[in-house]
Amino acid sequence: MLTGKNFIGNKLSALGNVTFQTFNPELNKNNNQIFHEASDDEILESVNLAKIAFESYKKTTPKERSTFLNSIADELVAVSDNLLQVYCSETGLPAGRSRGELKRTIGQLRSFADLALDGSWVEASIDTAIPDREPIPKPDLRKMMIPLGPIVVFGASNFPLAYSTAGGDTASALAAGCPVIVKSHPMHAGTGEIVSGAIISAVKKNNMPDGVFSNLNSRDINVGVQLVNHTNVKAIGFTGSLKGGRSIYDLASKRDIPIPVFAEMGSTNPIIIMPDKIKNDYQELAVKFAKSITVGSGQFCTNPGMIISIKGSEMDRFIECLKLEINKIEPSCMLHPNILNSYNSNANQTTANKNVEIFYQSDSKNKENYPEHILATVNSDEFISNKNIHHEVFGPFSLIIKCNDMDDLKKVISSIQGQLTGTIIGQNDEIYQNQDLIDLLGDRVGRIIFDGVPTGVEVCPSMLHGGPYPATTDSRFTAVGIHSIKRWVRPFSYQDFPDEVLPDELKNDNPLNIKRTINGIIT
Amino acid sequence: MLTGKNFIGNKLSALGNVTFQTFNPELNKNNNQIFHEASDDEILESVNLAKIAFESYKKTTPKERSTFLNSIADELVAVSDNLLQVYCSETGLPAGRSRGELKRTIGQLRSFADLALDGSWVEASIDTAIPDREPIPKPDLRKMMIPLGPIVVFGASNFPLAYSTAGGDTASALAAGCPVIVKSHPMHAGTGEIVSGAIISAVKKNNMPDGVFSNLNSRDINVGVQLVNHTNVKAIGFTGSLKGGRSIYDLASKRDIPIPVFAEMGSTNPIIIMPDKIKNDYQELAVKFAKSITVGSGQFCTNPGMIISIKGSEMDRFIECLKLEINKIEPSCMLHPNILNSYNSNANQTTANKNVEIFYQSDSKNKENYPEHILATVNSDEFISNKNIHHEVFGPFSLIIKCNDMDDLKKVISSIQGQLTGTIIGQNDEIYQNQDLIDLLGDRVGRIIFDGVPTGVEVCPSMLHGGPYPATTDSRFTAVGIHSIKRWVRPFSYQDFPDEVLPDELKNDNPLNIKRTINGIIT
Repeated sequence: MLTGKNFIGNKLSALGNVTFQTFNPELNKNNNQIFHEASDDEILESVNLAKIAFESYKKTTPKERSTFLNSIADELVAVSDNLLQVYCSETGLPAGRSRGELKRTIGQLRSFADLALDGSWVEASIDTAIPDREPIPKPDLRKMMIPLGPIVVFGASNFPLAYSTAGGDTASALAAGCPVIVKSHPMHAGTGEIVSGAIISAVKKNNMPDGVFSNLNSRDINVGVQLVNHTNVKAIGFTGSLKGGRSIYDLASKRDIPIPVFAEMGSTNPIIIMPDKIKNDYQELAVKFAKSITVGSGQFCTNPGMIISIKGSEMDRFIECLKLEINKIEPSCMLHPNILNSYNSNANQTTANKNVEIFYQSDSKNKENYPEHILATVNSDEFISNKNIHHEVFGPFSLIIKCNDMDDLKKVISSIQGQLTGTIIGQNDEIYQNQDLIDLLGDRVGRIIFDGVPTGVEVCPSMLHGGPYPATTDSRFTAVGIHSIKRWVRPFSYQDFPDEVLPDELKNDNPLNIKRTINGIIT
Repeated sequence: MLTGKNFIGNKLSALGNVTFQTFNPELNKNNNQIFHEASDDEILESVNLAKIAFESYKKTTPKERSTFLNSIADELVAVSDNLLQVYCSETGLPAGRSRGELKRTIGQLRSFADLALDGSWVEASIDTAIPDREPIPKPDLRKMMIPLGPIVVFGASNFPLAYSTAGGDTASALAAGCPVIVKSHPMHAGTGEIVSGAIISAVKKNNMPDGVFSNLNSRDINVGVQLVNHTNVKAIGFTGSLKGGRSIYDLASKRDIPIPVFAEMGSTNPIIIMPDKIKNDYQELAVKFAKSITVGSGQFCTNPGMIISIKGSEMDRFIECLKLEINKIEPSCMLHPNILNSYNSNANQTTANKNVEIFYQSDSKNKENYPEHILATVNSDEFISNKNIHHEVFGPFSLIIKCNDMDDLKKVISSIQGQLTGTIIGQNDEIYQNQDLIDLLGDRVGRIIFDGVPTGVEVCPSMLHGGPYPATTDSRFTAVGIHSIKRWVRPFSYQDFPDEVLPDELKNDNPLNIKRTINGIIT
């Protein structure tokens, strides 16, 4: 059922000569389907179609946009059997994970459908005129959010559904009124094609403009570079490595007309375990973190890559217990040999340091594409002075940092770079007495968690999935939850416009019945 | 009463050897006071103090921050006589303008004081836990906006008060909880010193941390470059030229840890006059635009630098009338000889084109630092094909573009770059029938005005002062109005935190009594 072609708007197209295959890491061999990388002409056509599509798509009503998003969700449900089969063959991820991720992706689409239908996300604000104000009359001003234009979304390796083709970036951009061009992730091009087919099917059924969505296959960086540099492209969404995200940010910043890039990149997600807690609850904690470190072979952006506590017999007992618990967990397949190679190389870079000690390394039993679970320890002094061991090791790895005392622990926190999350595990009174520690951690993260694990990103309005650089390129936005729509919009003001010409969101009689702020009062 | 020193936090300091004077353009001579450019040590001390001050300043209560901002306003009132005298001596602007700008500056400070006191700007959002949700429990998540950290504000040449030392950028950053370091504009260093003195006086009276505000004198680019590159600095506010703004943006993007730059830069603010309107109301329009083009010697970012209509006898009659009306207006002094030089050079660059015709040029009567009012015309074909005449001419200059017909006029609009404002002047029915023209103009601007002039930026929540590049470096934000606070904050989530440790904004019993969204409902 796969074609290996690109979707250039509604049209399946394979003009390019560069081809590639995806890889089944469980079977350790290529999948059969040949994919055609998008050619220069196809890239150009997709951005030109997107520009034209924007003119009509931005004017679709809340109801039309909402129906379109729900229709994409429906089409995904319709193709789910085939989709999940291809997903598993391209990722080595278990069927349960594939179903969970599809459910989440559909949930995200429906939540943006609700947001679009409600219409209040445009933050409509009206300040009415005061014609007789002295010394000069006050004009009538009305402001709302409008879409930026065509958005390019780079599919993520670790979430072929929820952060890729029809994932959060695409759903939020389409809800905002922006056409989307996806640079499909080469590791799951087949999954991307099936999801794209579902989107295009929804485009056609709902008479959305041709070009509101395109899906470009790419094995190499050329497609991404051309998209980022094209004048029709108005913003970028990316989820992946620091190297990849920074390259895109740099390209976008150097354009004649720079564009915003929201790149979600590396994070080591530090976990602080307070002394009383590690003493009392070490077993429960070991079970919890063994699971969080190894879930999805550690291929989550919120994986706990760093555990920090005060050294001593209690910490040692926790570590021993963590080792026992992790040893009970069978390693699972990684997404791709390239990711395993990066994992091994990054882990080696850290553990090659003479002051870093590996105290647990599982046996991969020579199963191809299965990683070893690795736990390593380091003293805080070494950690603070050696930035080379601060980097993310994407996979089932955690560096455990032994501090001399609380002051030392605070120095460790002060030394770490920006993160998506930070977690503090303690008795309630240990938290109350260490507000300064919470502040230190808070300065460096986007989300702070008490007594939990950072894996598991709840999709809800109060979720912040983002954080200071290098967690993301712009800490002022979130990649998850309804507020992620703010990445793709800009405020726009109308001054003294006749009511008939104003968009419905700003008309006097509020035909869309949305929430608005009128002269400072929410109505 | 001036010292010529920098404020490094609360301390007056003049360690540097580089000195300079400001210039009185009306008298065409230097003012007496010698100013000391901030030295490298002083720059470092200011950013280090700001970092430390941030730790306590970010925790000030809404009431404390509000009182502080109102106190700055009060201190400005107290020094206003001296302030306005120095202002006029450094700018050549008339006393009426100085009073108006001070009033506006004070109004802005008080409006951010109100915003801070109200506290709802943090957009608090709470999603409560569902412990028994299947398959996994839903955690408790709470989100609010928090300040980014120390902000650097570059003072603007054309608004020594409203967009400089205690202007909109500073007021919004202080309201957000960010310390501010001002790179004072060299043309009005004395004005900056007096305003800074008022701020420091308020810092002391309100026991705000030393370093929450610093003011650095600078004649050259060194101070700005060092500030933009310093790791303690978390965002930049800038108002000025495209060249200056882009340089700062480029520096900030190349940092190891890039930071957001909100630069408001050039804009030509196109005016479209529809055929029926120009026929019927040419006299009224000529009076209105003669005033708007020349007000403040054209030194407003929203100055109408481009007037576009359909050629013919009606347009010619309007132009003749505009010439007569502008001729009635006496040129007024420009801010500085450098600005006059740039004005002449930019105007020459446009009018040197053989297809651009100067049809009005006032006589500056050899008064030093007084500009000539210039009106020039060009045909649409030439304008569309020649990007060299699209640039801003900062001063009392307007380029009038004669189009063959409506299609041609639309092509002109399609050819122009990003703008702060766009204005459409027409009979109501001419607007109703040309929705596509409004769309074209809207794509390129931040604010669209019907039947008015772009000069005069109302300070209210529905104002958008911003727009697509090169009007600004990030169209997703406004530089004017309460929402300009959004430039300096980031969202932050707490997961499963004990109520006692949460900030007041997110505590269960809402002690600050602010507006919050709880499980999707605004309360």
